[in-house]
Amino acid sequence: MHLLEERILADGCALSDGVLKVDGFINHQIDADLMYEIAKEFKKRFADITYNKILTIEASGIAPAVMLGYCMHLPVIFAKKQTPKTMDNVISVKIHSFTKNKDYDVLLSKSFLNKNDKVLFIDDFLAYGSAALGIKNLVEMAGAELVGMGFIIEKKFQNGGSILKEKGIRVESLAVIEEISAGKVKFSK
Amino acid sequence: MHLLEERILADGCALSDGVLKVDGFINHQIDADLMYEIAKEFKKRFADITYNKILTIEASGIAPAVMLGYCMHLPVIFAKKQTPKTMDNVISVKIHSFTKNKDYDVLLSKSFLNKNDKVLFIDDFLAYGSAALGIKNLVEMAGAELVGMGFIIEKKFQNGGSILKEKGIRVESLAVIEEISAGKVKFSK
Repeated sequence: MHLLEERILADGCALSDGVLKVDGFINHQIDADLMYEIAKEFKKRFADITYNKILTIEASGIAPAVMLGYCMHLPVIFAKKQTPKTMDNVISVKIHSFTKNKDYDVLLSKSFLNKNDKVLFIDDFLAYGSAALGIKNLVEMAGAELVGMGFIIEKKFQNGGSILKEKGIRVESLAVIEEISAGKVKFSK
Repeated sequence: MHLLEERILADGCALSDGVLKVDGFINHQIDADLMYEIAKEFKKRFADITYNKILTIEASGIAPAVMLGYCMHLPVIFAKKQTPKTMDNVISVKIHSFTKNKDYDVLLSKSFLNKNDKVLFIDDFLAYGSAALGIKNLVEMAGAELVGMGFIIEKKFQNGGSILKEKGIRVESLAVIEEISAGKVKFSK
């Protein structure tokens, strides 16, 4: 997605350890109009598959997921990282965060996902694929079907994309980064 | 907002201790089309004031804030409850959660808020006003101006609305709940 790549080059910040900082338009401050364009692109890329629910993880996945929900007129579920007081009927998985080097739980109420659901997962980043694999397990625990995964940015050098595709998951990433080095971002052609 | 009140009556669940469960369309599963209608209503209610940034707190505030950002073509900032690895230039406040009966930190990067900004705060719930007062302090710490606060649901019996208005804050709540008792929700007329 050209618009997104241009924006990453203009406003993203490549840190030395393979970290790409996009908190000016995705992760902390959000460009809502860009999110709408991102959602339209997800809609186009997944136009050949059928899904009735969109799933994401709080917090940075919510903006693109809700915009896609708006474009598709579909409900959006966001998996939580803490158990709220009013949440029941909960299923959960443990996910390892390489960025923070610790495990965290991701929770979902079974009230909103069941065997009749075809689920598209949307998130901001695909790195090692750890969160995505956790979500795959969570969707299976709910008895629902995972039909695809869409990411705003994929860091290809961290291999998550290959891991997910090997498991037969349809993956679409709007900006695929081959390499981050010397403060520069190199996209896949 | 009639559409929202109808939805709360249809799909909300009034728990015994003044808690309103709306996780089927706001807090866990999100009705994206409803969020768009909510954003249009916020746009209308705040049509007489000028703002250039929308601020919210992760996670449930993100959906309505991003939709308003889309309607107004304005950037949205979400304050965080944890410090991400890539966040710098941080300011923070401590907020007491009455629901969870504990304190938590809310963080913001000063990179995205400064003395030139006029900020509209958007969140899902107004209860005791604790989070909203924390946000007021955070905006002032950044040197920016808080021009208003919009909430999807206000629980009037928990008094947050009065507290904010006493401090001179312009408050707009789309559904104002007078009372929750015996499993019933009573709206303000």
